Amino acid sequence: MTGRLPLLTRRGDTLRYERERGVVTVLNRRLYPAETVWVECADLEAVARSIETMVIQGGPPLAYVAGYGLALALDQAADRSVERQREVLAAAVARLGRTRPTADDLHTLLAEADRRAGAALDAGSGAGDAVYEFVAGEVRRGDRSAERCGVRAAELLTDGDTVLTVCYPGAAFNWMLYAAVVTQGKQVAVMPSETRPYGQGIRLTASQAAEIGAPVTVINDNMPGFCFSRGMITVYVTAADRIALDGSIANKVGTYQNAVLAKRHGVPFYVLGYDGPDQNTPDGAAIPIEERDGDEVLMMNGVRIAPPGVRGFYPAFDVTPPELISGIVTDRGLYRPAMIGRYLQESDDGPLDVIPLLGTTM
Amino acid sequence: MTGRLPLLTRRGDTLRYERERGVVTVLNRRLYPAETVWVECADLEAVARSIETMVIQGGPPLAYVAGYGLALALDQAADRSVERQREVLAAAVARLGRTRPTADDLHTLLAEADRRAGAALDAGSGAGDAVYEFVAGEVRRGDRSAERCGVRAAELLTDGDTVLTVCYPGAAFNWMLYAAVVTQGKQVAVMPSETRPYGQGIRLTASQAAEIGAPVTVINDNMPGFCFSRGMITVYVTAADRIALDGSIANKVGTYQNAVLAKRHGVPFYVLGYDGPDQNTPDGAAIPIEERDGDEVLMMNGVRIAPPGVRGFYPAFDVTPPELISGIVTDRGLYRPAMIGRYLQESDDGPLDVIPLLGTTM
Repeated sequence: MTGRLPLLTRRGDTLRYERERGVVTVLNRRLYPAETVWVECADLEAVARSIETMVIQGGPPLAYVAGYGLALALDQAADRSVERQREVLAAAVARLGRTRPTADDLHTLLAEADRRAGAALDAGSGAGDAVYEFVAGEVRRGDRSAERCGVRAAELLTDGDTVLTVCYPGAAFNWMLYAAVVTQGKQVAVMPSETRPYGQGIRLTASQAAEIGAPVTVINDNMPGFCFSRGMITVYVTAADRIALDGSIANKVGTYQNAVLAKRHGVPFYVLGYDGPDQNTPDGAAIPIEERDGDEVLMMNGVRIAPPGVRGFYPAFDVTPPELISGIVTDRGLYRPAMIGRYLQESDDGPLDVIPLLGTTM
Repeated sequence: MTGRLPLLTRRGDTLRYERERGVVTVLNRRLYPAETVWVECADLEAVARSIETMVIQGGPPLAYVAGYGLALALDQAADRSVERQREVLAAAVARLGRTRPTADDLHTLLAEADRRAGAALDAGSGAGDAVYEFVAGEVRRGDRSAERCGVRAAELLTDGDTVLTVCYPGAAFNWMLYAAVVTQGKQVAVMPSETRPYGQGIRLTASQAAEIGAPVTVINDNMPGFCFSRGMITVYVTAADRIALDGSIANKVGTYQNAVLAKRHGVPFYVLGYDGPDQNTPDGAAIPIEERDGDEVLMMNGVRIAPPGVRGFYPAFDVTPPELISGIVTDRGLYRPAMIGRYLQESDDGPLDVIPLLGTTM
């Protein structure tokens, strides 16, 4: 195979904080791959807007951008009084925390960055330095986690598989495909569901999978049912914006309905769980589901399609219960959904806890 | 309520054969309601293309346009020899029959029109006259059938209902809403699913329901699962492009996956069955499913969204088995899916055979 690791695989290639220039630079994922446009955010508000408008998307990547935005705000306040810097810190954490509610990465990262910045101010050292170094470390840690998760997931794919997915499941999906197709030489095809209204499936997933060298067949979001009924899908794989301790997952809207179909048709559903569940989320009902501007639903490619006098409704995520999930693949191994809480008791260096799974018969 | 019966309710308002001008005139349903554009087809090939490109859509309406196209072709050959007219007839029936395979209306209408044209030629009378009068009668009969079907379906709706639908379920859907909302004063809201790639839901259904005076909330095709899980949908109603004798239905792709969700969430699924099943189709497996140009899946509003190197797959319909359908509403009453064959034994003037149904508990 002649495939390569595509651009979105390493997050540091698509988002960075250029401290010497004072800008957070982000690949615009709303235009990619048709256009490769870099957005430069020169202040906190611009960073927050890049997250809210989905210039950057995906749980970990948007958390990294938020973290760099916090470092930027603190750097810009570095010559103020410590009291003023504490105010800037609190306001910035609050502003960034309001951007998007569903994925846990943002909120976990902001809480730790807040703590480290506060500690730096207590110690009389630079709060911007502390946050920048923490976030840069998180990007490196996240990249390693994605690679481990993806390579483990590749073991679940077999020659001849066709993988249905929704949205863009992130770097672990790229690693999964690369390991399966390029390293292991498996024949694995990818069927991205378009993912209206923003089209992450038809744009991001389709381009990444094609660069890796997998055959890609795009369908619209009303077509998975037909494809399941004809046996065209052999495995369903998505990411998760948040994993609860009961094994429920929240992911891009549409994930749940495909999981129902996968179960009905005996197709396994694996979740790319990256670095595991959120310890503060006991179950699926505790996950806040973001509702975005309904007008987006009414638009296609920037043009309003719907007639006057009608509204749109845009729930950005949905929750899939653990009984519809065959397994959650993390950087530490494969878990039955109900046992995902064990992830938190295991160390990075601990033995692998790969729990045998039997497709959908579990 | 101040609602009105919208344009698509009476088919004769949107398609006609202007014999004196020699054109079949069709409302362009790919542009409506944003633009009200009439397409004039001056020969058989133009008529066939208007069907293939979905300028006209919906099982009965496209059948009527095909019938008028056949009359046009025969009129244009009226001064030829009878042998030549028979050749024109055979070629036109074959060409029109190749346009779209799934809905039975087209094939049933063409077969009867062919028979009548042949009989006219045998009798030395005008084949174009015979077909024109037959088709005009079918339009009137179809309009009556749609009204009866829709008014019966309105009885299944209750105050406070929210109706999920896909594609545009045709004139019976308009009549159902009009009877429920305007005549009966019920509070009934409509949730059209967009219906990619052509957007019949976001354009046609949304506009028709809004004109009738129902609140309309459009969702994308990946969002019904979320809405079911939150109890936002109380009844699911679609049309059927073909009904088999075992109670299976073929309808616009996406119908099946929503039916699976409706069953899971205890929401009844009613099919607007118009004038009943196709007597030549024993079961769902016997329904041919049209596969359209995969490139359409890759486009939004005329612009290709997908990156190079990927293909699209566009199954235009899917099949829903009878166990997922609560009832089929026809112009003769409401049938359990497994009993839909009884429709064919009952006459237009016979007593109603309204079989009591208990939502999804049947």
